[in-house]
Amino acid sequence: MMAAARARRDSRVDDEELTMAFDIYEQLVPVFSGMLRNLDAILTKAEADAAARKIEPSVFLQGRLAPDMLPFTRQIQIMSDQAKGGASRLAGREPPKWADDEQTFADLHARIAKTIAHLQTFEPEDFTAAEERTIELKFPNGTLSFDGKDYFWKFVVPNFYFHYTTAYLILRHNGVQIGKRDYLG
Amino acid sequence: MMAAARARRDSRVDDEELTMAFDIYEQLVPVFSGMLRNLDAILTKAEADAAARKIEPSVFLQGRLAPDMLPFTRQIQIMSDQAKGGASRLAGREPPKWADDEQTFADLHARIAKTIAHLQTFEPEDFTAAEERTIELKFPNGTLSFDGKDYFWKFVVPNFYFHYTTAYLILRHNGVQIGKRDYLG
Repeated sequence: MMAAARARRDSRVDDEELTMAFDIYEQLVPVFSGMLRNLDAILTKAEADAAARKIEPSVFLQGRLAPDMLPFTRQIQIMSDQAKGGASRLAGREPPKWADDEQTFADLHARIAKTIAHLQTFEPEDFTAAEERTIELKFPNGTLSFDGKDYFWKFVVPNFYFHYTTAYLILRHNGVQIGKRDYLG
Repeated sequence: MMAAARARRDSRVDDEELTMAFDIYEQLVPVFSGMLRNLDAILTKAEADAAARKIEPSVFLQGRLAPDMLPFTRQIQIMSDQAKGGASRLAGREPPKWADDEQTFADLHARIAKTIAHLQTFEPEDFTAAEERTIELKFPNGTLSFDGKDYFWKFVVPNFYFHYTTAYLILRHNGVQIGKRDYLG
């Protein structure tokens, strides 16, 4: 068999074994990492904008779109948690516990870097059994139980983008000059 | 071979052939349809809230979070377009052209129903070649070209949730009593 044909065959066999795992890996590691890098660049723009317009950083960092909504910093922590917890749980690992004590733009940049570094510890093979795992999330008012597939598609992905978009819109609402291109990267 | 074992084997073989297609189908058809139904229920709450607080429906329908942002109705049209265009293009079909002339809550409910009905016309098999397709999107200022995989993961999914979250947050910002549970369903 020619080398090119053999490579194609081998890659097809790998594809078949790993596709499900690979799609989850693809979303959780390269795509989420890319979005976190976009957020990092957005934070840099927000910080520069606050300095230029002489706005207290806390106006952005504690910004909300409704009085009973979580502030900007918390949106980023939860977005980070979706990536950290999503990847860990779907790979059958215990998610690392982080203090959620970020207060400044510098702290948030560090949180993003730590989240991306955590994602880089996973390989496609880690998600081979992901879709069949039982995932339990404990909340103050009860436990949510999912299979891995529903946890990924119906919880992690929509929550990640929910908190990312909310952080972005808090800045947009406060006049930071960012657009869809910053969000998508 | 016992029937149950044979069914397991057959379903495993199908899985291997169709997984990549199936994951795209899964996100585009059942998951997006579910999110569109959640949005439909959110619209019903918004309409009732506007009536109860004697707020002109257009305050919500034309609501924005920044003066240079697209209004609520447009957010829903674009969210619908991601589902309609994403599924059509990834299946190699021409996306249907819709007029984007929705003006009222009733119009938006109809747009959501039409989007869900369009999604229901697809089967997992329609996405078998999806990840390898070349997708070209024409914009006033140029053409974006993707392979199907990047179009799906880095454009359709983040855009769909971006416009969904934005529509949700315009209502939240205007005091409509909705929460994460309404968003996730």
